[in-house]
Amino acid sequence: MSPIKVGLLGLGVVGGGTWKVLTRNAEEIARRAGRRIEVSAIAVRDVEKARKLVGDQAQVCRDGFEVVRRPDIDIVVEIIGGDTLARELVMEAIARGKHVVTANKALLAKHGNEIFAAAHQKGVMVAFEAAVAGGIPIIKAIREGLTANRIQWLAGIINGTTNFILSEMRARGLSFNEVLAEAQRLGYAEADPTFDIEGVDAAHKLTLLASLAFGVPVQFDKAHIEGISSLAREDIVHAERLGYRIKLLGFTRRRNDGIELRVHPTLVPAERLLANVEGAMNAVLVSGDMVGPTLYYGQGAGELPTASAVVADLVDVTRLQTADPEHRVPYLAFQPDALDDTPILPIEEVRSSYYLRMRVLDRPGVLADIARILADVGISIGSMIQEPHGETEADIIFLTHEAREGDIDSALQRIGALAFVHSDVTRLRMEHLI
Amino acid sequence: MSPIKVGLLGLGVVGGGTWKVLTRNAEEIARRAGRRIEVSAIAVRDVEKARKLVGDQAQVCRDGFEVVRRPDIDIVVEIIGGDTLARELVMEAIARGKHVVTANKALLAKHGNEIFAAAHQKGVMVAFEAAVAGGIPIIKAIREGLTANRIQWLAGIINGTTNFILSEMRARGLSFNEVLAEAQRLGYAEADPTFDIEGVDAAHKLTLLASLAFGVPVQFDKAHIEGISSLAREDIVHAERLGYRIKLLGFTRRRNDGIELRVHPTLVPAERLLANVEGAMNAVLVSGDMVGPTLYYGQGAGELPTASAVVADLVDVTRLQTADPEHRVPYLAFQPDALDDTPILPIEEVRSSYYLRMRVLDRPGVLADIARILADVGISIGSMIQEPHGETEADIIFLTHEAREGDIDSALQRIGALAFVHSDVTRLRMEHLI
Ligand SMILES: NC(=O)c1ccc[n+]([C@@H]2O[C@H](COP(=O)([O-])OP(=O)(O)OC[C@H]3O[C@@H](n4cnc5c(N)ncnc54)[C@H](OP(=O)(O)O)[C@@H]3O)[C@@H](O)[C@H]2O)c1
Ligand SMILES: NC(=O)c1ccc[n+]([C@@H]2O[C@H](COP(=O)([O-])OP(=O)(O)OC[C@H]3O[C@@H](n4cnc5c(N)ncnc54)[C@H](OP(=O)(O)O)[C@@H]3O)[C@@H](O)[C@H]2O)c1
Repeated sequence: MSPIKVGLLGLGVVGGGTWKVLTRNAEEIARRAGRRIEVSAIAVRDVEKARKLVGDQAQVCRDGFEVVRRPDIDIVVEIIGGDTLARELVMEAIARGKHVVTANKALLAKHGNEIFAAAHQKGVMVAFEAAVAGGIPIIKAIREGLTANRIQWLAGIINGTTNFILSEMRARGLSFNEVLAEAQRLGYAEADPTFDIEGVDAAHKLTLLASLAFGVPVQFDKAHIEGISSLAREDIVHAERLGYRIKLLGFTRRRNDGIELRVHPTLVPAERLLANVEGAMNAVLVSGDMVGPTLYYGQGAGELPTASAVVADLVDVTRLQTADPEHRVPYLAFQPDALDDTPILPIEEVRSSYYLRMRVLDRPGVLADIARILADVGISIGSMIQEPHGETEADIIFLTHEAREGDIDSALQRIGALAFVHSDVTRLRMEHLI
Repeated sequence: MSPIKVGLLGLGVVGGGTWKVLTRNAEEIARRAGRRIEVSAIAVRDVEKARKLVGDQAQVCRDGFEVVRRPDIDIVVEIIGGDTLARELVMEAIARGKHVVTANKALLAKHGNEIFAAAHQKGVMVAFEAAVAGGIPIIKAIREGLTANRIQWLAGIINGTTNFILSEMRARGLSFNEVLAEAQRLGYAEADPTFDIEGVDAAHKLTLLASLAFGVPVQFDKAHIEGISSLAREDIVHAERLGYRIKLLGFTRRRNDGIELRVHPTLVPAERLLANVEGAMNAVLVSGDMVGPTLYYGQGAGELPTASAVVADLVDVTRLQTADPEHRVPYLAFQPDALDDTPILPIEEVRSSYYLRMRVLDRPGVLADIARILADVGISIGSMIQEPHGETEADIIFLTHEAREGDIDSALQRIGALAFVHSDVTRLRMEHLI
C-alpha cells in the first residue's frame, strides 16, 4: 500500500523531532500502522536550515499554504505555534478536507470550538495528543480509556518548566529568581518565560483537559490563572514543615453548580505520588467515579517526547485511513503479518543484578573465598553487609552488579557446596528501572 | 440510533460490575459513544441470583451458547473465566461474526494466537483492556499511545493481591503467612490464592504486555515465573536497609538476542515511583526509545475498576460501529451535540483549603482576633504554626479546612486592615487529592 502523505508546518523543536522519529523508527511504525508514513512537504522560514536536516527527501518551502494546498497531502501537522497564522493554516487545511495533527495548545484553548466545528462538518480528524503533557497519552486515556466514567476531578503537573523550578527551589533552598536564571541557562526555560511561569501554558492545557473530562466547550477565558513568579522560598519551607509540597497544579472539578477550572501553586501532601513528581516531568491524576484515581506520568515536553505524541496521532489517522474499521488497531499492536519471531530467552540468559543472602561460619577467609568464586565467573559485587548471628555464625548479604543468570547459578552451586556455608543461598533479582 | 446490543457471559464480580457501570452511567456513556449500549442477554449458572440484579431487563439463561447465537447481539462479553468453556464460547462468537470483549488474561495468554487469528479472518474485534491492570488503560496506551516508539522494556506491578501482601509485610513486619491469612479474611486474596501468590496471574498479564510492546506472538509457556510465597520477612528488612523495596514485578525487555520475560520478587530502589505503589494498587512503567519512561497507575482489579475497562472496550467497539471512521472518537471526547453548558465557576465560588501566612505584632490577643475574623465567615482552622521574627514580631501560618474562596477574600480583607498585621497575607491553596 502506498505511504500516507504528511505535510509539516514548522520544523523547529517539535517538527524536527517528528522528522527524526518518523525516520529512525520508520520500520517499527509501519509494522504498527500497516503503512508507511511519509513527510512530503515542509514549510519553514529558514529553508536552508531545514534542508540540512531533511536533504532532498521532501519539498521545503516558505509558504505554509503551499503545503496545505498540495492535493496529495493527506495529513497536515501544525507545529508552527501561535494563534494567528496557525489558525488560518489549520482552517484552510480543514476546508480542503485534510486531517490535522497539532501540538498547539494555545491555538486550541482559544479557537478549539471553531476548529472542531469546522472539522466535524468536513469529516476530518483533528488530533492533539502532543498539546497536553507531551509524550504521555493522556488525551487518549481520557477520550477513550475512561469512557465508562463520570470524571469527578483531575489534577495535573502539566508544565515542566515550573515543576523544574519548584523542585530546585525546594531541594536547594534557592529563590525563584535564582532558579529561573539557571533554568534559562540550561534550556529548561525560554528566554521569555512568561507563559510558563505565569501559568498560562498550564491553563491552555487544563482548559482542554476539562473539556475532555466533562464534555463542555473549550473556555480558556474562564480559567483562573496564578503562576509561581511571586512564590516565596519561605512558603516552600513552611509547607514542607507542615508535611506538604508546593506544585503548580492545573485543577478542575465538576460540582453540581458548575466546574472549577484553576491553575495556581498548590500545597499537596508530601506522600502523594503527584507531590513526588520532580524536575521537568509531568503527571496527570484523573478521578473517575467507577475506576477511582488513575495517574499518568512521563516527559511533558522536549523534542522527542512531544514528537512521540505527534507520531502516535499520525498512526491513529493512518490506521483509520488504511483498514476497515474492524481492523483499525491490530490485536497485538502490530499488524498480524508484521509479528516477528524474536525468541524469548531462557532464564539462564537473563541479565539482572542480584541480592544474595547466606549464613556462614564467622571466621576469617570465608568472605574472601566466596568473593573469589563470584569473581571467577565474572560477577562483581556492588555492596555487602555482614551481620553476626549468634556466637559463631554470620549472615552475609551481597548486592551484585549486572550479571548473567547462568553465571550466578554456577557460582551459587559452588558456594552452596562450601562447608562453612550453613544455609541455602537466597537469591533475589534487582532492577534499577529509571 | 438504536442501541448496540451486548451479551454478557457471566455476571460475577466483573459481570455484575459491568451491569452496574452501564446502568449508572448510561447517560454519560451514550454522550461519549454516540449510542446507547444495552445488555440484551446474560448467561450464568445461577439464574435466580442474576435475576435479583437485572430484573426483567435482559434475558437470563444458563447456556452461554444461547447468548452467543442470538442474531441480534453485536458484542459478546466473556467474563466467565477459565480457558475451556470460555475458549469455546469466544471461538463460537467470532465464528458468528460477533465482536468480543474479555477480561480473561488466562485465556488470552494461552490461546491468544488462535483467537486473534480467527478474529482477524472474520473481521471482528477482540478487545481485552480489562485483562491487564484492571481500570488502567494500559493496553490502549501501548497499542495506540506509544506507537511512535521502539519499546525497550516494561516493568509492572500487575497483581494487586501480592502487592497488598508485600506492602503489609514491610509496613508491619509480618510474615508472608500471617498477611496472607489476613488478606483472605479481608477479601483481598482468594480462598485458593495459588495463581496470585505464585506469580501465574502476573505472568498471564505480562505475556500479553510483552506481545503488545514488542510485536511477538503470545508465549506464556516461555515466561519465567516465581511468586512470593517463599519470600522471607528478613529479606524485606535487609533490602530496606540497603535502600530497596521488594515488589513482585512483571519485567520484560528487548535485547538484540531475544526477549526477557520474567515475573519474580524484585528489589527496586526505594525512591522510584514503582517502589511507592502500595496496597492493592497496580502500576506499569513503559520505556520507549523516543518518549522515555512513562508510568500508568490505578486500581488493577475489583468490580467497578475492572468493569470500567470492559465498558471502555464496549464504547470503542460501539464508536467504530456507529460513526464513519473520521468521526470515530469525538474531538472533545463527547459527541459534538452532547456537549453541555455547565458553567465554569468564578474563582470566588471555588472551594479549597488554604495556607495563610502573615507577619504580626507579637502580643497577646492578636491570634484570637484573627481567628475570630476567620470564624465569623465560617472558616475553620486545621493547624497553625507561629514563629518569632525578631524581638517584637511573629509569623503566623494557618492551614484552613475547606472554605469558599469568596469568604477567604472577605476575611483576608478584614485581617489586612488590622493595625497589628504588618504584612500582606500570603494565600496559597491546598488540595488533598487521593
Ligand atoms: N517545544 C516543546 O517541547 C513543545 C511541547 C509541546 C507542544 N509544543 C507546541 O508545538 C508548537 C511548536 O513548538 P516548537 O517548540 O517546535 O517551536 P519552534 O522550535 O519555535 O519551531 C517553530 C517552527 O515553525 C516555523 N515557522 C515559524 N513561523 C513560520 C512561518 N510564518 N512560516 C513558516 N514556518 C514558520 C519555524 O521556522 P524556522 O525554523 O525557519 O524559524 C520553526 O521551524 C507550539 O505550538 C508549541 O506550543 C512544543
Ligand atoms: N475479579 C476481578 O477483579 C477481575 C479483574 C480482572 C479480570 N478478571 C477476570 O474476569 C473474569 C471473570 O472474573 P470474576 O471475578 O467476575 O469471576 P466470578 O465472580 O467467579 O464470576 C464468574 C461468572 O461466570 C458465571 N459462570 C461460571 N461458569 C459458568 C457456566 N458454565 N455457564 C454460565 N455461566 C457461568 C458465574 O455464574 P454464577 O454467578 O451463576 O455462578 C459467574 O456469574 C476472569 O477471567 C477473571 O480472570 C477479574
